[in-house]
Amino acid sequence: MQSFADPIERAERCFGDREGVVAGEVRLSFGAFAERCRRLAGWLLARTQRGDRVAVLAANSHQQLELYCAVPACGRLIVPLNGRHALPEIAYALRDSGARLLFTDWSAAALGELADLASEIVPLGAGYEDRIAGAPRAALGRGVGEDDLAGLFYTGGTTGASKGVMLSQRNKLADALHLNTSVRLTQDDTWQVISPMFHTAGTFHALLCLWVGARQVILPGFEARGVLDAIERERSSVMFGVPTMLSAMLEEQRARERDLSSLRLLGYGAAPASSSLLRRVRDALPRCELVSMYGATELAPMATTLEHMERCVDDERALSAGRPIPGVRLRILDAEGRELGPREVGEVAVAGPNVMRGYWNKAEQTAEVLRLGWYHTGDLGFLDERGCLYLVDRAKDMIVSGGENVYSSEVEEVLYRHPAVLECAVFGVPDPHWGEAVRAAVVLRPGRSASEDELREHCRRALGGYKVPKAVDLHGDALPKSGAGKILKRALRAPFWQGRERGIHGSE
Amino acid sequence: MQSFADPIERAERCFGDREGVVAGEVRLSFGAFAERCRRLAGWLLARTQRGDRVAVLAANSHQQLELYCAVPACGRLIVPLNGRHALPEIAYALRDSGARLLFTDWSAAALGELADLASEIVPLGAGYEDRIAGAPRAALGRGVGEDDLAGLFYTGGTTGASKGVMLSQRNKLADALHLNTSVRLTQDDTWQVISPMFHTAGTFHALLCLWVGARQVILPGFEARGVLDAIERERSSVMFGVPTMLSAMLEEQRARERDLSSLRLLGYGAAPASSSLLRRVRDALPRCELVSMYGATELAPMATTLEHMERCVDDERALSAGRPIPGVRLRILDAEGRELGPREVGEVAVAGPNVMRGYWNKAEQTAEVLRLGWYHTGDLGFLDERGCLYLVDRAKDMIVSGGENVYSSEVEEVLYRHPAVLECAVFGVPDPHWGEAVRAAVVLRPGRSASEDELREHCRRALGGYKVPKAVDLHGDALPKSGAGKILKRALRAPFWQGRERGIHGSE
Repeated sequence: MQSFADPIERAERCFGDREGVVAGEVRLSFGAFAERCRRLAGWLLARTQRGDRVAVLAANSHQQLELYCAVPACGRLIVPLNGRHALPEIAYALRDSGARLLFTDWSAAALGELADLASEIVPLGAGYEDRIAGAPRAALGRGVGEDDLAGLFYTGGTTGASKGVMLSQRNKLADALHLNTSVRLTQDDTWQVISPMFHTAGTFHALLCLWVGARQVILPGFEARGVLDAIERERSSVMFGVPTMLSAMLEEQRARERDLSSLRLLGYGAAPASSSLLRRVRDALPRCELVSMYGATELAPMATTLEHMERCVDDERALSAGRPIPGVRLRILDAEGRELGPREVGEVAVAGPNVMRGYWNKAEQTAEVLRLGWYHTGDLGFLDERGCLYLVDRAKDMIVSGGENVYSSEVEEVLYRHPAVLECAVFGVPDPHWGEAVRAAVVLRPGRSASEDELREHCRRALGGYKVPKAVDLHGDALPKSGAGKILKRALRAPFWQGRERGIHGSE
Repeated sequence: MQSFADPIERAERCFGDREGVVAGEVRLSFGAFAERCRRLAGWLLARTQRGDRVAVLAANSHQQLELYCAVPACGRLIVPLNGRHALPEIAYALRDSGARLLFTDWSAAALGELADLASEIVPLGAGYEDRIAGAPRAALGRGVGEDDLAGLFYTGGTTGASKGVMLSQRNKLADALHLNTSVRLTQDDTWQVISPMFHTAGTFHALLCLWVGARQVILPGFEARGVLDAIERERSSVMFGVPTMLSAMLEEQRARERDLSSLRLLGYGAAPASSSLLRRVRDALPRCELVSMYGATELAPMATTLEHMERCVDDERALSAGRPIPGVRLRILDAEGRELGPREVGEVAVAGPNVMRGYWNKAEQTAEVLRLGWYHTGDLGFLDERGCLYLVDRAKDMIVSGGENVYSSEVEEVLYRHPAVLECAVFGVPDPHWGEAVRAAVVLRPGRSASEDELREHCRRALGGYKVPKAVDLHGDALPKSGAGKILKRALRAPFWQGRERGIHGSE
């Protein structure tokens, strides 16, 4: 009988008058938020059946949060669409999910062919407000069980064809309590939402915030200046971002200093942070706890966490993704599925009440990754003697050069130590002699310079010869990124592999 | 696939070398603790079948903790027996559970007839150590699922015939994460165990401590002097007790002051604390957070919690049991099972993944309290506008005098405000005129005096006439208590009701 209704209603009953959601000029109490969810549910109940899919394609907003909470709370499936995808990709997700309703802040012109795929489109402005203002209030959670699906979360930005990850009510509720073992949220906290809400990183705090009565401050999207201003203005205390966001925020804070003293915890993940970046964050925010997090949409999303990274930045653990979060189990498996010991590299597998129910309409892909309750992440890593996980690469990103395994993250870590490097990505390109050759794409910090030779020489001082990039491409613009802010190696690699098949190494 | 094995193994993998369990002279690392659990499991696997019951009858010890963790982790059911019960009561639980193995620190003479009820008795000293030292190591959690039972927890000390509460692996694991939303434990914490481990209050911290890597310090039993010495010596940071324990600790601290500055959080529950007691605790431990907790064995055990009670001690909430803890749902129901509004008194009902699977071998009693997933607590209470629960009485303890409901706790709260009152209990006795009459049992503080008339006059100044005790019995010794430290009103009431049937009022 557990459902999304529980945190919404607890927040209302216990903290009804307190400010719960801030988005732009809009400030909603927990009571007003719950009331809006009930009206949205009332509107949905009249138009949809249990289990129907409801899509949303929009920038971050309180309406998007309402949809994220209320759609599952009334037994429908939320389908957040990634607005940074190309139209055909979005159309694929919309069609695959079978969503009949689409909530969006896109114009008809921007929607194009997407408009034909939904039977009703609700504009997320006055149209939305009119509809819920006129709707009857529906009880939340009525007839919804913990094993009912909460939504389809389309993933695959960095790994190929898009798949709808089926997450149940229980998956998300379990993850909220797992997350709390690391962030230890109270009603005095304010969570600053900086990740896009079509991605799990932009909503994974939401149920926990409601449960404990913590405030959420939502910005339309990530923009370093706006984020820092909001932290200062709202006295935000907790935040989660990807390393590239942290990097941009540091640059912005260097340009104009704000009072960020309210920030007590800064989580980061989705991609490894270099120790030089961590050191700079520690220096800029000396009283803020840094928490490394690692997960996957399929895990709703948390798998590992390491607290007080600011204390570990000078030891090996600076590069760790952390320990299995209480509530999940994690193993390193060899290609035959046998558990490996400390320091042995294999595929990361995770079990727990947070593990997805499968991919929507994709029994075969589900069976590939979900075996006996274990989700096989496709990430390669090892555990140290203290139970800390080190990700060495995506199975897909590992480079095999002259028979030697090269983990791209190791080379990237060395490149990031160079003072002129702002962003970099290392990947394999076809090589007639070595099979694959190591290649790097680098963006330099504004006002700094470094030649290709200098960067290769910098690598040579720290790495075995076969790991040193054979070529370094200097990019003038930011590297291509997924909606979640991960650098898209696929896109960097593609031009080199045109017309060829690239095998995937590792234990996948 | 979640089981008790998860926290044990996480503690070992992540914090293997750190001190995890302290009991007397024994100090075990998390690794050593897990290793002992595996050997205990190995010994058990050779002698018992899946689902067999394993009883323990002993003072608190690290062995009792090992049994509590390892028995469920290998798919057997732990049955902690209450050593403060009379032999026939213990014999009943042992027979009812069908436990074949009994672990105990009792002598053969003390066991008496109990010795005939188990097929094997393992003395919790050298006998236990010899057995596990010679046993093979067994993998924990193998084939154990989250819906398997973890144990039978015999309850009923204050409410009549003993019943075996069936708690599943998931019940206890869920409660651990619920609890953590209030105590926010980290690996830097030390949990001081002062409640008896045959009671859920003495073990409810255990899985959470293992999961996050917090240390547990175990004392054989509650004794105020020993507890304060241990807090000072071990720098304990978190503790849970019942109000009578807090009261005794304050007296002891007044007699000889210790350094209790390590104590950051003090939870209390099982019985309402008077605001005068809270005020004295706050004054004695000014930097310690006070957390009110309420639950039941049937809830594994947490239902509500209120943090920072030290801030509320001067308002109404001093008497609150707190808010529904995130993860559980709580309602106040009338006699027909309809939900009541704020400030309306009814029966407290709770739902969530922590709710027991039922009473062992007692389908009828199970059906009485467990309806559509809701556990009906038998407690009467109301919610205020901020979602805080106030318990007005056990349904069984409410007194109906001249047609008026008298909540015994309200009268007790007034009595506790009198400076000479150390302990008190208010209950109903048969009265030819009023049906029931209000009667009080009082223990005076050492060195203080007060007459019956003075105490009745004290009540008259604060309470309506029908609530004022018609008689006050001054007791020289402590009032009779259950194993959990609750005052046994049943025992106080019984002499007055001999040969009569007492109806139970309220919504039960």
